[in-house]
Amino acid sequence: MPRVDYLNDPNAPQANSIVPAVSAIVPDSDGRILLIRRTDNDYWSIPGGGVEPGESVSQAVTREVREETGIDCEVSGLVGIYSNPDRVAAYDDGEVRQEFSICFVTRMLGGTMATSRESSEVRFVPAQDIPDYDMHPSIRLRVQHYLESRSTPYIG
Amino acid sequence: MPRVDYLNDPNAPQANSIVPAVSAIVPDSDGRILLIRRTDNDYWSIPGGGVEPGESVSQAVTREVREETGIDCEVSGLVGIYSNPDRVAAYDDGEVRQEFSICFVTRMLGGTMATSRESSEVRFVPAQDIPDYDMHPSIRLRVQHYLESRSTPYIG
Repeated sequence: MPRVDYLNDPNAPQANSIVPAVSAIVPDSDGRILLIRRTDNDYWSIPGGGVEPGESVSQAVTREVREETGIDCEVSGLVGIYSNPDRVAAYDDGEVRQEFSICFVTRMLGGTMATSRESSEVRFVPAQDIPDYDMHPSIRLRVQHYLESRSTPYIG
Repeated sequence: MPRVDYLNDPNAPQANSIVPAVSAIVPDSDGRILLIRRTDNDYWSIPGGGVEPGESVSQAVTREVREETGIDCEVSGLVGIYSNPDRVAAYDDGEVRQEFSICFVTRMLGGTMATSRESSEVRFVPAQDIPDYDMHPSIRLRVQHYLESRSTPYIG
């Protein structure tokens, strides 16, 4: 579904929903980070998506990473909680969703990289190359918080 | 609104919604913990509630604690993320809500204790007295995790 992202934009539409979502930093053994190219807005991003009834946040992370990248992983820690009311995404069915995403660190277990309906490209990217990738600022912030190796999770 | 709580109950109804919520440990200067008695199910609990569009998780914590207890506080840390799909609450309008609550530690700033539509009693309770209070197991778990002073947040 096409979506339009807004950040700190006085002309953004008013949020009318909050959906709990998860996102994941998946480092490989060389410390490169798993990125996808989103089919809905063409940005590079980390894998993630909404939590579905019947699953825990950890299960949602494993499922979303598998669906969008083909990679198997398990949650190993927490990067932060991102609930900025000034970041909203407008969908073409009228939903205006406020950001509510918990970003986790994971341990890669295996799998084979594969694209999906939601991801047109999948690759592991060295940290120093990430600035070259076109990424929404709110996603770049999560990657940055991970790379800072913060002692306590970000709460925003 | 009356609600019925289920935990690990094979006869529980199927969850049909997940609503992001927050809850708060509010210690006073003597280390006693702020508890409320809920009007909807008569359990003792820690203050908390749903995040509303237009606010961050930190703002939701401050608002809910203020509304339910009269106490002013600010978020200072994270106890854990509680998303057990086997804990659901059934409301009389047909909603069956799966647990999705982030529990924070807060710093008390002031205020005057007051009951509300959602809280028939409000009091600070010493840690050693908490076992005497009738509390849902999922809430008792959060208090226990706080009292354990864990080095990393619980993810469940």
